[in-house]
Amino acid sequence: MAHEVRNRLSELRRDFHRHPEPGWREFRTTARVVEELERIGVDEIAVGREVLATDERMAVPDASELEPWRERARQAGVRSDVLERTADGNTGVVAVVEEGEGPCVGVRVDLDAISMRESTEDDHRPAAAGFRSEHDGYMHACGHDAHLAIALGTIEAVKDGDFEGTLKVFFQPAEEISGGGKAMAEGGYLDDVDYLLALHVGLGHPTGEFVAGVEKPLAMAHVTATFEGASAHAGKAPNEGGNAMQAAATAIQNAYAIPRHSDGMTRVNVGSIEGGTASNVIAEEITIEAEVRGETTGLMEYMRTELERVLYAAAEMHDCDVTPRVVSESPRVDSHPALRDLIGNVAWGVPGVDRVVPATDFGASEDVTYLMQRVQDNNGLASYVLIGTDHPTSHHTPTFDIDEESLDIGVAVLSETAIELARRRP
Amino acid sequence: MAHEVRNRLSELRRDFHRHPEPGWREFRTTARVVEELERIGVDEIAVGREVLATDERMAVPDASELEPWRERARQAGVRSDVLERTADGNTGVVAVVEEGEGPCVGVRVDLDAISMRESTEDDHRPAAAGFRSEHDGYMHACGHDAHLAIALGTIEAVKDGDFEGTLKVFFQPAEEISGGGKAMAEGGYLDDVDYLLALHVGLGHPTGEFVAGVEKPLAMAHVTATFEGASAHAGKAPNEGGNAMQAAATAIQNAYAIPRHSDGMTRVNVGSIEGGTASNVIAEEITIEAEVRGETTGLMEYMRTELERVLYAAAEMHDCDVTPRVVSESPRVDSHPALRDLIGNVAWGVPGVDRVVPATDFGASEDVTYLMQRVQDNNGLASYVLIGTDHPTSHHTPTFDIDEESLDIGVAVLSETAIELARRRP
Amino acid sequence: MAHEVRNRLSELRRDFHRHPEPGWREFRTTARVVEELERIGVDEIAVGREVLATDERMAVPDASELEPWRERARQAGVRSDVLERTADGNTGVVAVVEEGEGPCVGVRVDLDAISMRESTEDDHRPAAAGFRSEHDGYMHACGHDAHLAIALGTIEAVKDGDFEGTLKVFFQPAEEISGGGKAMAEGGYLDDVDYLLALHVGLGHPTGEFVAGVEKPLAMAHVTATFEGASAHAGKAPNEGGNAMQAAATAIQNAYAIPRHSDGMTRVNVGSIEGGTASNVIAEEITIEAEVRGETTGLMEYMRTELERVLYAAAEMHDCDVTPRVVSESPRVDSHPALRDLIGNVAWGVPGVDRVVPATDFGASEDVTYLMQRVQDNNGLASYVLIGTDHPTSHHTPTFDIDEESLDIGVAVLSETAIELARRRP
Amino acid sequence: MAHEVRNRLSELRRDFHRHPEPGWREFRTTARVVEELERIGVDEIAVGREVLATDERMAVPDASELEPWRERARQAGVRSDVLERTADGNTGVVAVVEEGEGPCVGVRVDLDAISMRESTEDDHRPAAAGFRSEHDGYMHACGHDAHLAIALGTIEAVKDGDFEGTLKVFFQPAEEISGGGKAMAEGGYLDDVDYLLALHVGLGHPTGEFVAGVEKPLAMAHVTATFEGASAHAGKAPNEGGNAMQAAATAIQNAYAIPRHSDGMTRVNVGSIEGGTASNVIAEEITIEAEVRGETTGLMEYMRTELERVLYAAAEMHDCDVTPRVVSESPRVDSHPALRDLIGNVAWGVPGVDRVVPATDFGASEDVTYLMQRVQDNNGLASYVLIGTDHPTSHHTPTFDIDEESLDIGVAVLSETAIELARRRP
Repeated sequence: MAHEVRNRLSELRRDFHRHPEPGWREFRTTARVVEELERIGVDEIAVGREVLATDERMAVPDASELEPWRERARQAGVRSDVLERTADGNTGVVAVVEEGEGPCVGVRVDLDAISMRESTEDDHRPAAAGFRSEHDGYMHACGHDAHLAIALGTIEAVKDGDFEGTLKVFFQPAEEISGGGKAMAEGGYLDDVDYLLALHVGLGHPTGEFVAGVEKPLAMAHVTATFEGASAHAGKAPNEGGNAMQAAATAIQNAYAIPRHSDGMTRVNVGSIEGGTASNVIAEEITIEAEVRGETTGLMEYMRTELERVLYAAAEMHDCDVTPRVVSESPRVDSHPALRDLIGNVAWGVPGVDRVVPATDFGASEDVTYLMQRVQDNNGLASYVLIGTDHPTSHHTPTFDIDEESLDIGVAVLSETAIELARRRP
Repeated sequence: MAHEVRNRLSELRRDFHRHPEPGWREFRTTARVVEELERIGVDEIAVGREVLATDERMAVPDASELEPWRERARQAGVRSDVLERTADGNTGVVAVVEEGEGPCVGVRVDLDAISMRESTEDDHRPAAAGFRSEHDGYMHACGHDAHLAIALGTIEAVKDGDFEGTLKVFFQPAEEISGGGKAMAEGGYLDDVDYLLALHVGLGHPTGEFVAGVEKPLAMAHVTATFEGASAHAGKAPNEGGNAMQAAATAIQNAYAIPRHSDGMTRVNVGSIEGGTASNVIAEEITIEAEVRGETTGLMEYMRTELERVLYAAAEMHDCDVTPRVVSESPRVDSHPALRDLIGNVAWGVPGVDRVVPATDFGASEDVTYLMQRVQDNNGLASYVLIGTDHPTSHHTPTFDIDEESLDIGVAVLSETAIELARRRP
Repeated sequence: MAHEVRNRLSELRRDFHRHPEPGWREFRTTARVVEELERIGVDEIAVGREVLATDERMAVPDASELEPWRERARQAGVRSDVLERTADGNTGVVAVVEEGEGPCVGVRVDLDAISMRESTEDDHRPAAAGFRSEHDGYMHACGHDAHLAIALGTIEAVKDGDFEGTLKVFFQPAEEISGGGKAMAEGGYLDDVDYLLALHVGLGHPTGEFVAGVEKPLAMAHVTATFEGASAHAGKAPNEGGNAMQAAATAIQNAYAIPRHSDGMTRVNVGSIEGGTASNVIAEEITIEAEVRGETTGLMEYMRTELERVLYAAAEMHDCDVTPRVVSESPRVDSHPALRDLIGNVAWGVPGVDRVVPATDFGASEDVTYLMQRVQDNNGLASYVLIGTDHPTSHHTPTFDIDEESLDIGVAVLSETAIELARRRP
Repeated sequence: MAHEVRNRLSELRRDFHRHPEPGWREFRTTARVVEELERIGVDEIAVGREVLATDERMAVPDASELEPWRERARQAGVRSDVLERTADGNTGVVAVVEEGEGPCVGVRVDLDAISMRESTEDDHRPAAAGFRSEHDGYMHACGHDAHLAIALGTIEAVKDGDFEGTLKVFFQPAEEISGGGKAMAEGGYLDDVDYLLALHVGLGHPTGEFVAGVEKPLAMAHVTATFEGASAHAGKAPNEGGNAMQAAATAIQNAYAIPRHSDGMTRVNVGSIEGGTASNVIAEEITIEAEVRGETTGLMEYMRTELERVLYAAAEMHDCDVTPRVVSESPRVDSHPALRDLIGNVAWGVPGVDRVVPATDFGASEDVTYLMQRVQDNNGLASYVLIGTDHPTSHHTPTFDIDEESLDIGVAVLSETAIELARRRP
């Protein structure tokens, strides 16, 4: 039966892999999850606006970017009821399984892919085996396709198992752009969750290894800013207008020079820039994409405040305007040690798991922290676990792939953990 | 007859106006000029490679940018012999009229348009009168369409007039990007020119005003540079790779801070920038478009040398590479006072001219200076004249237009001047 | 007799040379001038506050810097009445000679020296001939000692000559720091001056050459600014306080990057900096000395305004305070062409003058422009003349010296000019 | 007896307090220690060059700064034999006590004071009680005077106690400028030390508290750099020479912008700057004092390498020279956990100690790490302990003082620890 399950999980994962969709545009992915849930038969399937605090969504593209994906989904045969419920980029699903009295256990996975052209090389298995991305320029290069398969498998396993309580699985949109975490955390379905399990595959851990709890994700804010000055002829009127190029250069230099903080690690980066029209025109408009991070939420906020001060002063210096906009944000929340220990103990008994790492530092950012925060604020416990999988190349590369063996290991650990947690009274 | 001429000149100008083509892509424009010259009947029509020192062309786009324009020209019915002679972006024409013994008088005009979307407003005459640009996103917003009409009219007028000598009219490509001047200056046809008349309409001078000689164009160099570093994850590995964003910001700040020079005016501008991929990735590649100018060629060279020093040191500082590339360049050459005076005297007698300005400062740059330099190096005389024309808005704006009255004033001044020059032995 | 005069002029000049005093501290110099005027016998000798609009003095040092010089002067035997009249750094003298009805002719010279250690080399004549500076670290390295001798000689020559009118000689303090011009211009004595002759020796012009009028001095403002932040331990609390070092660095970079101006030449310099205490302390206070110049007063004001904007924004960016202070300032005023021509004509006839240059560009700044402006505002005429003198090395170098032959040439040109001007009715 | 001891310790401490000497100039302090050691009667007193690897000394002032202090010491009656042995700034002492077979226990204290004017306020006990600094502008504001008293007291207590083994006390010069640690570490006397105890009073820990081992001192390098360009007149020749001011500003901005490192904490600071002469002169020379730190020695080296790259590139950019010089440096070395535990246990039994902190993070830098490294490289153990003392204001402030109660607590803990360590075989 394990073989059969794995086949089904592999098929599911490959179907998701073939149809990657970027954040807030996971129309087909949402529909596919719904279909699968209907097939499994769960007690409640909530979609889109029903599961999101819509106004808390971050980094939502405008209609011109949403519509082509929605249209593509429509033409691919996606059901109109799902398309309606996900209108305006309100993607996402929550599945609820009720199995009597007991605690509420949550599982969180993510729906979105990234913009990257998948490899066509023969030694890239998705290409060789025929499940390479069919959406050119987009790819499941981070393993969210595997997360979806594991989540769906877990629901089945829990239903089949000796579980007493409620299972809620959160299929969150827009993780890659830190856009969906907050909206889902505040969407209502999380409010009665006692234990939250978030998961990720790989991240350097091989198949058979399992990390019971991730610590020290960096809190993060993604900030965009457009300097607006006034253009003028660089030869005839160099003194007129406001030079957005000089404002941006001053801001960038000083952004990297924001002082280190005694309380811990910080980060700052200006990752992209664009603007100006021609070499002989004073640049009127320059846009930068920046981010700041901190070992704690407070440190991230220190960096964001300082970055904003730098941006405003640089604009002022060159007679320009600027309005920094926080596109998305995620706090730092650590896995709870008690839950981590419990999960680690369960994992030891799961076939296929040959090494359990109690905890590991993260070093990157994840907006699941919004959900973890919410649960812990409500006196629940949360842990972010890593399911090892052999991956030939790094996440976010065109030849990323996973070892499908890890799919049912993931299902086993998660379902066993859920069952074990249900046994305990919160 | 004047009326008839003007009608023809207007028609010609409007035809050019409807079909703007950017630098080195003036395939249709070249062909249209050739056709007109054949109609007029001149002694020699040289095209493309025949009139250019091909290797001296600057700012030539690559094939992927040239071909769509060539294809468009082909589909618009441009003759295949002209398309062949202008292959690889070798646009441009020289017309030769030989009328017996006498000096060789040259006239230089320019073929290209700029990339700008022309206004569709009702009070913009080209829109109202139906000769708005048919090449969307491109526009004759500097008056080169008028220059072409004046040049063709001048050939006819000289042939009809009492001219003894040789007239050569240079239809230069790629003036706006300072790309064609050097190649045409060294193309051979200029070598026996005794007097060179370059012309521009407008520039703030109203219809009826005439400037006999422009002085102090700024020498100019357009420099592009791509900083190449190495990307890395901004959260996990901020210290790895080389940050092209920091290199560019440092370079921009220091470029504007290149010291003023005691010998005279200088200019520097970084007009556009683009690069980087996402806020969480250290930028691997940033490209800037810059320019420097100087009141003399030496001052421009001082600025170019200093700019290059800044670029290299900024790259070095941030462990990046950079290779500045001089895309195009033009020296400073002033109109010759003796020729200026002679032209001014002729202009006084031309109907429609009600004010003659002996000389004016230019403040901008023009690659006709390459041709002027060449002529003066050969002991000839050159002057850059301005033919006043009422223009509702500035050059290089979407509502630029000219007063077509000025077309036959231009023809009259130029042809009278040519005839007067031919009377004198050089 | 010429020989005798020269001897006296040389002696006078050498006495001043031995006792250099910096701006607003010319206590002994003022007294020595007064003595000499008493010896000559003039109609009025006004000193200190009597000749200055005290509140308009700029760059006045505080008492702790004034007193040691005053004390030194007292100990050197300077008369207490002069010391009293020059209290609080109110140095300066105006001498008035009244010789009947006629126009009022003014001559302006300067009293102060610079802080520089004079050469002790044998080939430096002041050292070899025993009149090297006796005030160590200070030196008449600009020729003001010669100016004083020429002015005193001119008074004698005018009194001896055929002069009808009033002669006023202005011995201005604090020229080197642009501190005294405005106060003397508004001190009252200038108000009835019809013609003002300002003078300088050398500036690259050899003995025998004479420049009748200097043009295009650059308008100038000297600005000082102290950034005040808050210090903190650089290891333990790098994020605390405000980093005045970063503020200053940002300000300096952007000061040099203030855009060039289409109306003409500008200049900017940050010439000195000092601040901070130790490598492991965030700098609390950094002081910079800067200047801006412009080809016109308007251009200088453009630069000063932009500099101030840069300073404030840089402080803001790094959470510091800054209060820029304009220490001193001088406008651009050109020599009047009519007066220039007249002086040139007189100079042609003066023995020892073998070349007269009608006008020359200045390229530097001088606060005599305040006096020239005042005179021309009152419908008088002013010219700034240069009296050639061979000087072995540049002004403001430790081996600067003059050719004393030029002293009586200076006296002759100035006195002849005064006499000639008196002949004309204004 | 304790009372008597404390009186003696207080007297000693106050004598040192009255005669503060900065790094490498501790001529009198060295002599006073020698005298005291002679009084106590130890087995060996090694001084100056005998205890230092002279060439490894860092941040040694030149003769002009050393001599006045040496002269002052001579005039204060310091013995000529000590002055000779400490010639050229080779200060420092090692005392050896041999008490039979047993391990070699080292204790390290520091001799130098800082440049700071001590408070004269009545509520500053040293002022009120008459032992304020007699060397104006210098002060024992960090507690080294207490360290010296504790060390001398410890020698006596060990001799009086039940100690079998060797005690070596290292009186290190130039700790404040991180100048003496390396030279003493490599001076030979440390090579057979089995246990090294370094100590500091205060640092926020009150009297009665004791920290058994400091961890995570930041590795540090103090770097000085002088930018050398060429001066020129800012008005007349702004383009000439090389502008050291611009080079320094560019360097400072980019120094703070050296990327954070994924391996841990880093620090950078430019703490002081000085240079240039006047606002109207292009600055020829600017000197900065900078430092970098890192959580590990490797991170400090990363920062130092990057800082040097920035300095060189900034100089290159502005046509200047620069030669960064590492004035001093200290690695990161942590207290050994085993030794820490043992000391903690001893401390619990010492009267006056009412709280033992096992370990604490340091956050600053100390060049004792060179000695600790040396001992641990030789398979010895080292710990850096903190002896609590109430101090009214922070270290390095003009009103810093200690609670002299802590002196004999320090003596007790150290001597008991030495005796206990001697009991164990290494």
